[in-house]
Amino acid sequence: MKKINFINPDKIKSWSTLKKTASKGGADFKNVLTPEFVKKSFIEAGGGLTYYYGAKGITPDVITALAELAEEQQLIGKYRRLLNGEIMNTGENRMVLHHLTRGRLGEDLVRDGKNLRSFYLSQQEKIAEFAGQVHSGAVKGSTGKPFDTVVQIGIGGSDLGPRALYLALEPMAVMKARFISNVDPDDAVSVLNSINPETTLFIAVSKSGTTQETLTNMEFARETMKSSGIPGLEPSKHMIAVTSETSPLAGSPDYLRSFYIDDFIGGRYSSTSAVGGAVLSLAFGPETFSSLLQGAAEADRLALEDDITKNPSMMDACIGIYERNFLGYPMTAVLPYSQALQRFPAHLQQLDMESNGKSVNRFGEPLNYQTGPVVFGEPGTNGQHSFYQLLHQGTDIVPLQFIGFTESQRSKDLTIDGSTSQEKLNANLAAQIVAFALGKDDENPNKRFAGNRPSSLIHGKKLTPEALGALLAHFENKIMFQGFLWNINSFDQEGVQLGKVLAKKILSGGEADPLLDFFYRL
Amino acid sequence: MKKINFINPDKIKSWSTLKKTASKGGADFKNVLTPEFVKKSFIEAGGGLTYYYGAKGITPDVITALAELAEEQQLIGKYRRLLNGEIMNTGENRMVLHHLTRGRLGEDLVRDGKNLRSFYLSQQEKIAEFAGQVHSGAVKGSTGKPFDTVVQIGIGGSDLGPRALYLALEPMAVMKARFISNVDPDDAVSVLNSINPETTLFIAVSKSGTTQETLTNMEFARETMKSSGIPGLEPSKHMIAVTSETSPLAGSPDYLRSFYIDDFIGGRYSSTSAVGGAVLSLAFGPETFSSLLQGAAEADRLALEDDITKNPSMMDACIGIYERNFLGYPMTAVLPYSQALQRFPAHLQQLDMESNGKSVNRFGEPLNYQTGPVVFGEPGTNGQHSFYQLLHQGTDIVPLQFIGFTESQRSKDLTIDGSTSQEKLNANLAAQIVAFALGKDDENPNKRFAGNRPSSLIHGKKLTPEALGALLAHFENKIMFQGFLWNINSFDQEGVQLGKVLAKKILSGGEADPLLDFFYRL
Repeated sequence: MKKINFINPDKIKSWSTLKKTASKGGADFKNVLTPEFVKKSFIEAGGGLTYYYGAKGITPDVITALAELAEEQQLIGKYRRLLNGEIMNTGENRMVLHHLTRGRLGEDLVRDGKNLRSFYLSQQEKIAEFAGQVHSGAVKGSTGKPFDTVVQIGIGGSDLGPRALYLALEPMAVMKARFISNVDPDDAVSVLNSINPETTLFIAVSKSGTTQETLTNMEFARETMKSSGIPGLEPSKHMIAVTSETSPLAGSPDYLRSFYIDDFIGGRYSSTSAVGGAVLSLAFGPETFSSLLQGAAEADRLALEDDITKNPSMMDACIGIYERNFLGYPMTAVLPYSQALQRFPAHLQQLDMESNGKSVNRFGEPLNYQTGPVVFGEPGTNGQHSFYQLLHQGTDIVPLQFIGFTESQRSKDLTIDGSTSQEKLNANLAAQIVAFALGKDDENPNKRFAGNRPSSLIHGKKLTPEALGALLAHFENKIMFQGFLWNINSFDQEGVQLGKVLAKKILSGGEADPLLDFFYRL
Repeated sequence: MKKINFINPDKIKSWSTLKKTASKGGADFKNVLTPEFVKKSFIEAGGGLTYYYGAKGITPDVITALAELAEEQQLIGKYRRLLNGEIMNTGENRMVLHHLTRGRLGEDLVRDGKNLRSFYLSQQEKIAEFAGQVHSGAVKGSTGKPFDTVVQIGIGGSDLGPRALYLALEPMAVMKARFISNVDPDDAVSVLNSINPETTLFIAVSKSGTTQETLTNMEFARETMKSSGIPGLEPSKHMIAVTSETSPLAGSPDYLRSFYIDDFIGGRYSSTSAVGGAVLSLAFGPETFSSLLQGAAEADRLALEDDITKNPSMMDACIGIYERNFLGYPMTAVLPYSQALQRFPAHLQQLDMESNGKSVNRFGEPLNYQTGPVVFGEPGTNGQHSFYQLLHQGTDIVPLQFIGFTESQRSKDLTIDGSTSQEKLNANLAAQIVAFALGKDDENPNKRFAGNRPSSLIHGKKLTPEALGALLAHFENKIMFQGFLWNINSFDQEGVQLGKVLAKKILSGGEADPLLDFFYRL
């Protein structure tokens, strides 16, 4: 096996090449975006999706340099090591195994006598069996009524991914799902007011079993049931847990069932583990969840391609580095032309910013280059009537990630003025890509569009479970590659600790700090 | 009256002063954030709110320079001109009168024989009367059932503001409200599937009466009613319009009633006009809407203060300029510690980015300084478990706008581990402000927090309608002041036009463009 080197990218040859190329300024898109170039600038991305990068305004010599960058930073070698169980989350001394929850890549990993692939797979099977029992009515609520609603209680990675995926497929739901995350009591009360406790199954999701927000909100749910006055209603028959085998929730009599994850599945990468598996298998049935995993596995396989022009997440990652470190763009907008993906940008926001918002490399040394960008976004066409003004005519350039589908997800549509709503949606998507790239001159400078705004597009026929799984894994892998490129650890999150410590200090009422005290007592 | 000069800020004295101050680097917050300084760094902001800027890390000499900046750019003079009907939206040759929808500031404005204050007021009164009739049952659905649901169909400014305000006060609702905005048919179908057409009142909101998304979605609603098979269901008895007096919707027989706005109310500034007034008066009753207007009017009055230390929106605006133009921060995060404000960041995103995302000054001359930042945000504590990692430890500094309240909005709460959820929420808020500002050293560089991350806080006892109105107007006025400071027109949005034109070109099937065609036919 080839030796793997973890070095900062500013020490390698292609970094200087890219610096030189970029110093001439970004390309004029009018010269780059020939129909011939755009039409051949795509890569199959799994789950029926295609990644189009022709409107990124990247010239062939930049692509060549990015291919060298990928090779010099040994992206594929590092990805293979990760798949094969090397400790890639160095700070926490952990393997990174979310890929193992979906598919057969990499070697069998046996640790402490436990085969981890079998472990994740067995949890999926147990969830599938349980979901089957709930759907058949073999498992019912404590008052004898069948469950029709599932409420996931979790925060961060235990909330954003599963919620975004649920909303994306909602028309296929056989049980409706709701989510409680915020410690703000208004969040819990609002959801708890909207459900029938007799027919609701709650899922507590916390790896450690100690997440303050989640335990608090579970208590809220329990209290609501107890105070409902419904005879025979037993909270413990309405609650399951997704947690680690060593957590206080594991096998607790307060829960009907427990399903397990472990330390090798990071919160934001846990959507394809039991964290997403329980709620999605209950909401849609295990077959649908399994299709989502298949789509993700396809994307994972494509990410193994050495050739950057055949590896969509690697190409996406490298172009992102070019935009961030050489063109100096500090943000990225995610713009799905699909209402079903309404919360997908919020999930990507966590996935990207929590993974790569780091200032030290994997050895803890400070960096002298920028890392992860700020990610934000809203569905099109809504965004067009909102913040696109700045994207088109603001003083900063924001790279854009469009997502679109030929067909809508619900079959209903209407022809008005000669086109369906879906056609209007897609006409707007195409129009925006071209408007951002090419702009338009005008004698009134206020109506002038400079153009040269880069965008890529992930496109599919329809947002199926397979497409959704591939979409998710594409971004997970892109972010992983960017972490390798920057030589950082994308799998820890030490930056969230200080706030937790100070909040506990306040609530424990210990030694007073005048500033904490001032803001707390307002 | 003193002469008002519209000049670029880089031509004035305080700009150079600020440049010199900032060139020494931002302040070390440890030296600035003495408890004494922080405790006195606040300004009353209307509606019971207070704006705290002590954790911005701004030194007293910067505040002095910002006060000079405000004076040199004649912020109060320009605001007074705007209130008194000067043409401030120069590109479109229009007055800017959203302040007139709430309160008695400025002179009476009579144009073409029409008193505009009376006009806006009369629309409010007509809406209040109509809402009263709906609530009393005097106006019922076409099948004789009382209305219990209102669905607003609009996009951009006709959607984001009213939606954010509705969600913020939802527990007070007497009729539930839903919103359809996206042209994606999945958006309309999902909402239309969830309502009972017999008891639903639709509001079409489009100033021009020609917004493609809105007309399409109104047709969807009409079609759903027609195809419902419910005998006697008459769509025109379930639809009202908010539009301009000259629009095709005005007085159309397809609508039960029409309420009017005009060209002097910009879409993103229209929440306090009939655009927000109809849906909010129906959802909450006219008294609640009126309280919201009172809160906004209070904030508008406070924005007239010459002294920057007594003018919260002016202080906020000037600090934003310091951060954007002198410290070089291109983004701002809005972080409400209140689940009720879940969509308020999305509204601010439009308000700010569509207003100030401009590259030419009000005379159409290109600028050589940055204008509006990218705005994004999610409610705390959710964000803490998501993108805060980057905010704490990323390579870029993002200024933060916290919002918080002593009490939750729904009265229900629970004490767990010695504190209520609301106390936990507020402990987290206080902890974050201090963590961002002061950071923490650690021998492990991966656990080090550099601190010096600026934040401000808008705080109130409770998110009442008055507080919400003041919050809204605070940001509207802040953004207006920033537009004056940058010498740009904050009230047009030419940047949204090109996309519309190209989308129409595709849909009309005219002369083919190979790139448009390629992306449209994927």
